[in-house]
Amino acid sequence: MFTVNEAAKLVSGAVIGDGNARVKGMAPCDFAEEGDITFAFDGEGLERAGKSRASCVLTTSGVENYPKTVLQVGDMKLALTVLYNAMLEMKLFAKGIIHPTAIISENAVLGKDVSIGPNAVIDDSAKIGDNSVVGANCVIGKNVTIGRKSYLHPNVTVYENTVIGNKVIIHSGTVLGADGFGYIPKDGKIYKVPQMGNVIIEDDVEIGANSCVDKGTFATTVVGRGTKIDNQVQIAHNVKLGKNVMVAGQSGIAGSSTVGDNTMMGGNVGIADHVNVGSNVKIGAKTGVHGHVRDNKVIFGYPYREAADARKLYGLLSLLIKNGRKFRAFLRKLPDE
Amino acid sequence: MFTVNEAAKLVSGAVIGDGNARVKGMAPCDFAEEGDITFAFDGEGLERAGKSRASCVLTTSGVENYPKTVLQVGDMKLALTVLYNAMLEMKLFAKGIIHPTAIISENAVLGKDVSIGPNAVIDDSAKIGDNSVVGANCVIGKNVTIGRKSYLHPNVTVYENTVIGNKVIIHSGTVLGADGFGYIPKDGKIYKVPQMGNVIIEDDVEIGANSCVDKGTFATTVVGRGTKIDNQVQIAHNVKLGKNVMVAGQSGIAGSSTVGDNTMMGGNVGIADHVNVGSNVKIGAKTGVHGHVRDNKVIFGYPYREAADARKLYGLLSLLIKNGRKFRAFLRKLPDE
Amino acid sequence: MFTVNEAAKLVSGAVIGDGNARVKGMAPCDFAEEGDITFAFDGEGLERAGKSRASCVLTTSGVENYPKTVLQVGDMKLALTVLYNAMLEMKLFAKGIIHPTAIISENAVLGKDVSIGPNAVIDDSAKIGDNSVVGANCVIGKNVTIGRKSYLHPNVTVYENTVIGNKVIIHSGTVLGADGFGYIPKDGKIYKVPQMGNVIIEDDVEIGANSCVDKGTFATTVVGRGTKIDNQVQIAHNVKLGKNVMVAGQSGIAGSSTVGDNTMMGGNVGIADHVNVGSNVKIGAKTGVHGHVRDNKVIFGYPYREAADARKLYGLLSLLIKNGRKFRAFLRKLPDE
Repeated sequence: MFTVNEAAKLVSGAVIGDGNARVKGMAPCDFAEEGDITFAFDGEGLERAGKSRASCVLTTSGVENYPKTVLQVGDMKLALTVLYNAMLEMKLFAKGIIHPTAIISENAVLGKDVSIGPNAVIDDSAKIGDNSVVGANCVIGKNVTIGRKSYLHPNVTVYENTVIGNKVIIHSGTVLGADGFGYIPKDGKIYKVPQMGNVIIEDDVEIGANSCVDKGTFATTVVGRGTKIDNQVQIAHNVKLGKNVMVAGQSGIAGSSTVGDNTMMGGNVGIADHVNVGSNVKIGAKTGVHGHVRDNKVIFGYPYREAADARKLYGLLSLLIKNGRKFRAFLRKLPDE
Repeated sequence: MFTVNEAAKLVSGAVIGDGNARVKGMAPCDFAEEGDITFAFDGEGLERAGKSRASCVLTTSGVENYPKTVLQVGDMKLALTVLYNAMLEMKLFAKGIIHPTAIISENAVLGKDVSIGPNAVIDDSAKIGDNSVVGANCVIGKNVTIGRKSYLHPNVTVYENTVIGNKVIIHSGTVLGADGFGYIPKDGKIYKVPQMGNVIIEDDVEIGANSCVDKGTFATTVVGRGTKIDNQVQIAHNVKLGKNVMVAGQSGIAGSSTVGDNTMMGGNVGIADHVNVGSNVKIGAKTGVHGHVRDNKVIFGYPYREAADARKLYGLLSLLIKNGRKFRAFLRKLPDE
Repeated sequence: MFTVNEAAKLVSGAVIGDGNARVKGMAPCDFAEEGDITFAFDGEGLERAGKSRASCVLTTSGVENYPKTVLQVGDMKLALTVLYNAMLEMKLFAKGIIHPTAIISENAVLGKDVSIGPNAVIDDSAKIGDNSVVGANCVIGKNVTIGRKSYLHPNVTVYENTVIGNKVIIHSGTVLGADGFGYIPKDGKIYKVPQMGNVIIEDDVEIGANSCVDKGTFATTVVGRGTKIDNQVQIAHNVKLGKNVMVAGQSGIAGSSTVGDNTMMGGNVGIADHVNVGSNVKIGAKTGVHGHVRDNKVIFGYPYREAADARKLYGLLSLLIKNGRKFRAFLRKLPDE
């Protein structure tokens, strides 16, 4: 727990009221409980916050005769972000409760203050580090390793041998370590390509809801440190994502492709298999990447082009539409070469 | 339960046989149980229906010496639809059974005749209205509110503070209220944008399987009354979907965008963040919407154009391909400006 | 279980060491347990394999004084594939254990050596064939039929009346048999189109994680024998997929469309509703298929064209960009028709 005074230091704010009050989380007025900091963007918000169950109100205004302790700051958005991040850890990991309905193998090794939700299943030889949380109805396969202070929301499925680092957040419905998609037709039979590798999720990664990261065929599919993945993203077998990569919703990266550090993808981007995308690349939404892309490129379109070219093309096609009739006539009359 | 006579009134049909027989649901021959209405499109179907376990057969033909009660109608498809909708409610909500393995917080408030499936988890302060059903293995977070006659199929995950209205249907694997995708890099650290708001699903909404609706950052993500969402759809934080919107499968709407009433999206449509799409807009499949769209527009393509323009362009490009060699030669000889 | 000698016969390999040793599975060094065959691509791998817990090492090199039994082969990749497929069945189906927390209806019929994982729910009248496995937290609806030697990974949801054949593999998070997406607005009300049919998954199908196959409206949605479906794929109501079809990740097939045998789709392909795609068709990633496609075609693009045309167009547009300024000037000066 913080005191309000400690919170004020983090955001260079001023305290009006009880600076020694203890705060444990952050929430909008309607959901705030005792011990929470809530926030008010204007006078109306301030009035609602005053009637909430929160213990402290973050705002830019000064107040008089106000029923709550106020934490006054200059930059609301920055203060909210800094406080939220500081308190996220407290909010997520305070408990250390193992629900009696959780099914935990005798061979599993749980660290200090691990929380396991109702009906979660922890299979043989799984290791879960200190302060980590496995939500309700999660299924953690054999020999899975989860680091410290990681948080799996309910209904996450983790296949055998997956390694999850420290401070990783995985949202509900996400599946880590399922088999890659590969088949070899031979002599009228279809053989499944061996899928025997695993998945490594490095520290500080967050993965949204209903996403998938498939295991490697012989080796490892890697999601690099600090990388953030949105909902419904598909990361295929053997892919290597660098550090601090951002992958927006519904994007897919096909088998054995690599993506360099700090690269950013808009929504529903597709990267073909065996393609190398460099570092610091920016990829517009819905782009189809069928070839290698060097560092620092900005690309867009399907098939993709450099963004400047894609924009130029878009303009030219608009002009073409506008002059469609004339252009048709011209094309028809164009002499053979 | 209906009687066959009551069913006949709903669809302006004629009863041949026992009009006082009671019916409770509707099913194809192969799956029909006693008390179901089944249906036959032709003579062969009629024969099969006669041998089924159903109590009544919906058909357009008259019959003689038939082993089942028949409900004869003029417009088969209309009658099927009207009856199915009338009976859906009965079928879905008849039970009021709480499975002994369900884990229900002592602080949760359940209305009359609520059904909770095996291994479902209902967290603190959740409220579930009369006649609603929470399927097997669902996880309902803290302070979630579910209205009356809503139906959550198995394996749905609902994060804290989500509000679900009346007569809402949510299919399996869908996740409501996960964190939005937002990060602020600052001084070499990546901060998570606060995700403290919630999700409101208004009355009469249906959401397909494996879809996601993320919570708002400070406020609320809204799915408006009567809106229907297909499978694997992604609705990002702070989005406001109007009333009676139709969103086909694998479409995604990025953060803070709005969509007006009655707008229809084909499959795999992407709407960029902070974009306002009007009412009664029609959006073709796979369209990429990167800018605001006014009411009543019909749009298509990536990047999107008005559908008439997109069609014109498609035709022009076909002509270009056909005349490719000549056009190449022409372009090469084109003098500098 | 195999002996190493039996394994050697399958891959035309030579045994160095104990050919009578028994092997039960296959795994990379780091995850190998006693009884597993591991593999080494080079000298370093061979050294690591020698220290692993595996009972046998597959490699192309001869060895001397090596601590493990070695199975020496000429074509490593082929041998890995053949052995993996031969052992997959053993690995998957060896157990026949029903976890005490599984909730199985008294009316369900289980074959010989069926395994049911923790917290799995098997509803009334479900039938599960010999040697099949239902993973942890799966929910199997009423009257579902599962054949022999089929494997459902954890957290799969199967709606009522679905039929799953023999040797089918379904990965986590996948939903079979949810309602199709169809609504009829009439007299200011929105009616749900009846969704009363079912899903049939034929023998030897594999479906990846978080995919969906919706039930038919009145009849059946069919996934044909030997068809392989990747992660996050959407198969809508009434679709008929032929035999040995390959559908890569994030593809979607809209209502009532058909796809012929052996057709292959790249990632994120969309097929519109009521479209017939022939046999042996090849469809490039992200293609949008809005019309019928005859057998043996190779298509690509959005909207789709024959691949040769799509490539030609791509080249022409590149040329257009390069000559953009000149072409603009030309278009402006083009006389009216």
